[in-house]
Amino acid sequence: MKITIAVDLMGGDYGPSVTIPAIVKVLRSRKDLFFNLYGAQEIVSPYLNDLKGYSNHYQFFPTEIVVKTGMVLTDIVRNGLKSSMGAAVRSVADKQSDAVVSGGDTGAFMALSKIYIKTFQGISRPAIPAFLPTVKGLCLMLDLGANAQCTPEMLLQFALMGKVYIHAYLNVQNPKIALLNIGTEVEKGHKDIQEAAVLLKEHPELNYRGFIEGNYITQGDIDVIVTDGFTGNVALKTIQGSAILIKHLLSKAFTRTIFSKIGYLLCKSSLFKAYKSIDQRYYNGAPFLGLKGIAIKSHGHSDVIGFENALKVAINMVERKLPSLIEMHLKKG
Amino acid sequence: MKITIAVDLMGGDYGPSVTIPAIVKVLRSRKDLFFNLYGAQEIVSPYLNDLKGYSNHYQFFPTEIVVKTGMVLTDIVRNGLKSSMGAAVRSVADKQSDAVVSGGDTGAFMALSKIYIKTFQGISRPAIPAFLPTVKGLCLMLDLGANAQCTPEMLLQFALMGKVYIHAYLNVQNPKIALLNIGTEVEKGHKDIQEAAVLLKEHPELNYRGFIEGNYITQGDIDVIVTDGFTGNVALKTIQGSAILIKHLLSKAFTRTIFSKIGYLLCKSSLFKAYKSIDQRYYNGAPFLGLKGIAIKSHGHSDVIGFENALKVAINMVERKLPSLIEMHLKKG
Repeated sequence: MKITIAVDLMGGDYGPSVTIPAIVKVLRSRKDLFFNLYGAQEIVSPYLNDLKGYSNHYQFFPTEIVVKTGMVLTDIVRNGLKSSMGAAVRSVADKQSDAVVSGGDTGAFMALSKIYIKTFQGISRPAIPAFLPTVKGLCLMLDLGANAQCTPEMLLQFALMGKVYIHAYLNVQNPKIALLNIGTEVEKGHKDIQEAAVLLKEHPELNYRGFIEGNYITQGDIDVIVTDGFTGNVALKTIQGSAILIKHLLSKAFTRTIFSKIGYLLCKSSLFKAYKSIDQRYYNGAPFLGLKGIAIKSHGHSDVIGFENALKVAINMVERKLPSLIEMHLKKG
Repeated sequence: MKITIAVDLMGGDYGPSVTIPAIVKVLRSRKDLFFNLYGAQEIVSPYLNDLKGYSNHYQFFPTEIVVKTGMVLTDIVRNGLKSSMGAAVRSVADKQSDAVVSGGDTGAFMALSKIYIKTFQGISRPAIPAFLPTVKGLCLMLDLGANAQCTPEMLLQFALMGKVYIHAYLNVQNPKIALLNIGTEVEKGHKDIQEAAVLLKEHPELNYRGFIEGNYITQGDIDVIVTDGFTGNVALKTIQGSAILIKHLLSKAFTRTIFSKIGYLLCKSSLFKAYKSIDQRYYNGAPFLGLKGIAIKSHGHSDVIGFENALKVAINMVERKLPSLIEMHLKKG
């Protein structure tokens, strides 16, 4: 099977200086790939040289506009195909590509994906999931920001889609699912989360385990953590902030005395291994769950390793036919 | 000025084996303190020996019931003064004590405080604040779980009370205040938070700086972070969970090879200093803000150092007359 991926070359902080080297890395190991590439001719051209030798594996489509954070959403939508992001998304809707990857503005990418690719019946806005490192491996949390306010029915949809995604991506069978809350007793939290708890508990396809508190996210006892996009976004970013604080404290500690400096040199390679296990670049690339096609959001700050990972997520999800699996589960739900 | 503190000796996971040694430690350095102590005679008695030599500094009141998590709130309230927690809270309402400290169940302590001590006009439920370590020092976040759903007016009250508390506790003048949100653009988040932003911005007493995202909490650029109790509780516990994960990864890294083991020994004392700066015990003890008296919640898992810190918070807040300061600011608001 030949897989075709559309890439918004301009998305993300570094544009083609990151997106094209990442494509080259992926092409080196797989010959069954084809890329539809969208971007501004004059900016992209110098980087296309890197793709020499892969001329049968890509086509470049010049576009006029680059979507930037801060642009008005209605303008982005009105200009549609003129932007690298819009044209890339549209190629999935038109069946020219099997998936689209962009590191551009999340709101714009989500809006264009909804308009062109469309969501399954009953899904008002797709959910954004993320894998998080835990003491025992990875867990999946969703929604991470697409839906600031959620009904109990939406939380049930997130649970069903999360189950499909973690099975497709990590092959977790019958994942343990919990709702993020401020306590584990049934009466904790607000009305919506209590109603969602009933829906998840009664659903025959879900292995629902009750509420989980923030301090247990990283314990690894739960596979899929379901939450509204507001709380999920705050939790995800808070984990990132905590890691930055601890990194700061550690680097101060390791340079405090001559002993700690020598000690650091001795620990360095072990510490690097530990750091790699929580390095976000290796978890980069999240599908918009609930779309009829595959759109993968790469983090805006991603470097080549991060964007390469997002491309691999796209390929993986095409191979596993993510949208059909989701549709099947939502129909049962 | 003699300061009288009521202590629920039975509160917290370790009861009088922690609460009494902490009282002894505080009494060693200050002679102007008096403690009203409440607890079960047979459990407390052996520990009272530790207070020998301080017989002029405490009175013990035996009580029948110990409030435990899982007990029905209406039962706790109905039994009121029969419990060590209820009697200790009541002594503040009756002006027998200047403040009460308990490590018992938060919901019960909050309910009893509301009933006996009462809140200021317009405060439906007191807010729970916490100090968090940042790259630049401490910041204050509230609410941490007392109010799962908040109106814009409540978020304004939290901002005003947070301003008073961080000034009273850390002497921060004109603290920088922000609302926790999922983005910094004005249109981000839900309706309540956008309305709250307008209230905070327009209030002449507040140095409002806009929205803050979860990853910036630990950066230390903002002094008071205002949020609803649901999001705040998740964020606080997520920070705790992240710290546990990183501790786990570090201890694996430090024991991985003979080099990293030796390296760890060389870094140990510097690492311990770094760890101390995020050790929650030194931040233990949070007032219920908005009460007409002083009630300090100690973490249930606290050891002697933690409970001692909660007692110090109580003493500090009595000296600074926290409730009058809060009342004054709420009236202006």
